[in-house]
Amino acid sequence: MSTYKITIGQYLLNRLKDIGIDTIFGCPGDYNMPFLDLIEDDGQLTWANDANELNAAYAADGYARIKGAGAVVTTFGVGEMSAANGTAGSYSEMVPVVHIVGTPNTKAQSSGAILHHSLGNGNFNVFLEMFAKITVASTQLDKKNALSEIDNVLIAMMRSRRAAYIGLPIDLVKFEIELSEPVSPLDTSLPKNPRNTQNDCLQVVLEAIKKAKNPIILVDACALRNQLTGVVKELCEKSKFPTFVSPMGKGAVDDTADYYRGCYCGSVSLAEVHKEVQDSDLILEVGSVQSDFNTGGFTYKVDRSKIIAFHTFATNVYRATYEKVGMSELLPLLIKELPQYPSRTYPPVPRPQDIKHDSQEITHNYFWNKVPDFMDTNAIVVAETGTSEFGVFNMNAPKGASFITQVLWGSIGYSVGAAYGAAMADRSRRVYLFVGDGSFQMTVQEVSAMLHQGLTPVIFLLNNDGYLIEKLIHGPDRDYNNFQMWKYAKTLDYFGADLPVNTSKPKQSKVGVQAKLSTRKEFEAAMTLVSEQKDRIHFLEIVMPRFDAPRELLLQVETSDNR
Amino acid sequence: MSTYKITIGQYLLNRLKDIGIDTIFGCPGDYNMPFLDLIEDDGQLTWANDANELNAAYAADGYARIKGAGAVVTTFGVGEMSAANGTAGSYSEMVPVVHIVGTPNTKAQSSGAILHHSLGNGNFNVFLEMFAKITVASTQLDKKNALSEIDNVLIAMMRSRRAAYIGLPIDLVKFEIELSEPVSPLDTSLPKNPRNTQNDCLQVVLEAIKKAKNPIILVDACALRNQLTGVVKELCEKSKFPTFVSPMGKGAVDDTADYYRGCYCGSVSLAEVHKEVQDSDLILEVGSVQSDFNTGGFTYKVDRSKIIAFHTFATNVYRATYEKVGMSELLPLLIKELPQYPSRTYPPVPRPQDIKHDSQEITHNYFWNKVPDFMDTNAIVVAETGTSEFGVFNMNAPKGASFITQVLWGSIGYSVGAAYGAAMADRSRRVYLFVGDGSFQMTVQEVSAMLHQGLTPVIFLLNNDGYLIEKLIHGPDRDYNNFQMWKYAKTLDYFGADLPVNTSKPKQSKVGVQAKLSTRKEFEAAMTLVSEQKDRIHFLEIVMPRFDAPRELLLQVETSDNR
Repeated sequence: MSTYKITIGQYLLNRLKDIGIDTIFGCPGDYNMPFLDLIEDDGQLTWANDANELNAAYAADGYARIKGAGAVVTTFGVGEMSAANGTAGSYSEMVPVVHIVGTPNTKAQSSGAILHHSLGNGNFNVFLEMFAKITVASTQLDKKNALSEIDNVLIAMMRSRRAAYIGLPIDLVKFEIELSEPVSPLDTSLPKNPRNTQNDCLQVVLEAIKKAKNPIILVDACALRNQLTGVVKELCEKSKFPTFVSPMGKGAVDDTADYYRGCYCGSVSLAEVHKEVQDSDLILEVGSVQSDFNTGGFTYKVDRSKIIAFHTFATNVYRATYEKVGMSELLPLLIKELPQYPSRTYPPVPRPQDIKHDSQEITHNYFWNKVPDFMDTNAIVVAETGTSEFGVFNMNAPKGASFITQVLWGSIGYSVGAAYGAAMADRSRRVYLFVGDGSFQMTVQEVSAMLHQGLTPVIFLLNNDGYLIEKLIHGPDRDYNNFQMWKYAKTLDYFGADLPVNTSKPKQSKVGVQAKLSTRKEFEAAMTLVSEQKDRIHFLEIVMPRFDAPRELLLQVETSDNR
Repeated sequence: MSTYKITIGQYLLNRLKDIGIDTIFGCPGDYNMPFLDLIEDDGQLTWANDANELNAAYAADGYARIKGAGAVVTTFGVGEMSAANGTAGSYSEMVPVVHIVGTPNTKAQSSGAILHHSLGNGNFNVFLEMFAKITVASTQLDKKNALSEIDNVLIAMMRSRRAAYIGLPIDLVKFEIELSEPVSPLDTSLPKNPRNTQNDCLQVVLEAIKKAKNPIILVDACALRNQLTGVVKELCEKSKFPTFVSPMGKGAVDDTADYYRGCYCGSVSLAEVHKEVQDSDLILEVGSVQSDFNTGGFTYKVDRSKIIAFHTFATNVYRATYEKVGMSELLPLLIKELPQYPSRTYPPVPRPQDIKHDSQEITHNYFWNKVPDFMDTNAIVVAETGTSEFGVFNMNAPKGASFITQVLWGSIGYSVGAAYGAAMADRSRRVYLFVGDGSFQMTVQEVSAMLHQGLTPVIFLLNNDGYLIEKLIHGPDRDYNNFQMWKYAKTLDYFGADLPVNTSKPKQSKVGVQAKLSTRKEFEAAMTLVSEQKDRIHFLEIVMPRFDAPRELLLQVETSDNR
């Protein structure tokens, strides 16, 4: 066994690459720049240079939802605090993103110097302590613990699918540590299920399925987070059970699959969908998250004697819990034991009521029904919290589509950053961003990063002149739910789409459609161009009636305590 | 003594008004809207409706620096996390801003419901616990403690001049509490100094001053934070001692006063300024903050046997500390006991070396020397962290000018929000915002709020094509220090300066100059218009040579450990 030397910074980068990361998000700051040198010089990594830190954290989250893991780099104090919302969101929504913070040099920290970006009280642990509350693992690296701590934090992050935090003092970035070869790979696999408990559980599940007259499958967030869409597909194909997704599970099952029956979320569901779920005598829940907006405001209300719930670290059969029996190991065993069910035919998938064909107004019902006609297969649909999030519940998505929304954390503005991240994660898939005017205002500058990287997303700015979801919940005529109107259709122009780029490898996007659209005719003409010009970025400002909303949003609001 | 009923929300608003707040910053969210109703209906309050929460926190900070206290309202989880950087900055820089968070209803909180905007783990205290680390006082209100907790938190905030945090559950906003009349006013006065210790201290200080051959005064941040500029003026006028300010103390002494000698910050000072300070045998420091950027990277280095330091809660005479002898009470006593010194003449105030008059380039040396010629008295100068912050060190400010910079916390992008807040704080004073292109990109959308409120700041966008301060510290040719170029000069246009406003009392700004300026001739012509059109908002993109920098910045960078 031989040894070699590696810098702490490079070791960290190597580990990030081990878990599939090829792009790192963030903003430069004077405590992280030596680490950015390593990123730029690595050769295999791209530095995404976001417009601000919150956007960077959102982008890393969107990226991680497509690639499986993400990383964001900020500077101490100011930068990390700006990104805190994004990191908390990754924790909440179970997205593995490591937040790496360039911190002051260890000597200054231990002397308690009054440095810029600090609270001025000599306490350099305060931000680490704050992030410990919104991450699954957090550490400040030192010379002795650095390599093991990096491994520990990344393993915890990958196993739990939660955000993590690493503080990297500026003087340790290029500090060399001796390491034995070969370096063992990072073991991020989940712990094995306890064998006997799992066997018992499996038999009970098989028995229940055998007895059920009308079993269904309901696929939710954790199926996506544990990258089990392939396993879910096998389960569906072998069982032929009618299959539903929750709002957070949207995209885990292909909308085009014959067994796909729609999006279930309690009283917010389409009536036929609600009935099918309620009429079932056995619901196989895969990775469910019982949050308010994911359950139609807790109106799911199916008796637990009809539910088997497969979770990441446990399985519930009715009211019994099989602790530590996680679905990643159990589901493949279940599929193996299940008989192959015969082919069956399903009634047509319930769809929202038909749109009025005589109007030229771009209403939500029209819009969400029409837009999929122009979308590419393998689309990545990024839907902002609020109106868009509810609009996509019943969108008839193209084959292979992925959905990115923050149904639980629900930070408005998230989608703009997330769309940037998703587009960086896979340039072969087209990103469709749906964002309302209020949310767009929060994080608008990230469009600039998209242009800078030569990305080609399609951006739909839904302009209904104010915070619509807020108005529906409370205060429709209040000034606080209105704000300055912008010239949204000039966004790509303002952010310099046609200006020269000053980096060593300029990639500036070409601009396609950039327009304000008020009629269905205009919209459809623009979309024809969008679907033809796949190598361009498009920005469509869609003018909608001021109080028009997707039916799903109106139903959700009815369940709210906050009116 | 009679009793009456008041809602918790209204009581909080009344207390905010007691401490001089008439504008509340923030963004609506579904856990805070009933509180926003009260703000809109109050009649004496303005709701500032910021473009995002971080900008709102910056704005509340800028407002508080002019008005004495500020408030920002966000929603639970997402909103408060977005604003965390701003709140931490107010704590660090000693600016009393209360961050009020609309939280979920008490029933949902105690049941641990999985609500949107939460971490999904039923823990509703996590954000309160985080903010406890970056505020001087923090609380979550309940029915029993609400009124006393509001008082306690606001008193702690005002006495310490630090940020504070109040969680306000949505169902308690309109919950009525019985109160005895008359309600006693909020006592935010500082505790009295211990009498005997203060007397001893005063005698020693008087003795030291009497013996000194060449005493000087050095005024710093805490003089401003404790609103002691009037007291400092008396001290200067009675003593005639040559008076300096630190970077954080800029504006505490009128640049036009005859005793004003310049800005002192160790090796970053002008050579003559440095010499005058070093040659003094007694330095009376008023409210000093010994942070890196406030002391020229700790190059102040005057022997403590020559320093008397007046602090908020203590006085240091040489190496002795008089605990609890705060300057707010001590300085007026000192002034009273001091003899009236005779008039004297001072040599001319040292100024940076002359600018080249034959060039048309807008260099920093030219710019910072020239721009004051066009500025109004009582200007509020908001200088962004980085280039602008260093540029104003030796700016010859007009009479009555105030300066807003974040020398200690140094969060880039701060100035755009702070300028909005400062402009809302006093519409009779003109706000001059100096911001670099990199910082501007972080928080650009706050310009929209300025337009919406009909404000008339003068915005200088210093375009040097990248993060200049970062480049000077590290990586001048690195891609990570460059970013997308925008059409900055179209900012007011993009943010809808000429679009109709949809609120009940529209105030949209009129636009004056909106231009990209590359030569001194263009600049001076534009500034002539700016100084004439006082009722308009102006946006000047100033194109500067790519690596040109104020001499103060170059000197500061030389002291940095992070190169």
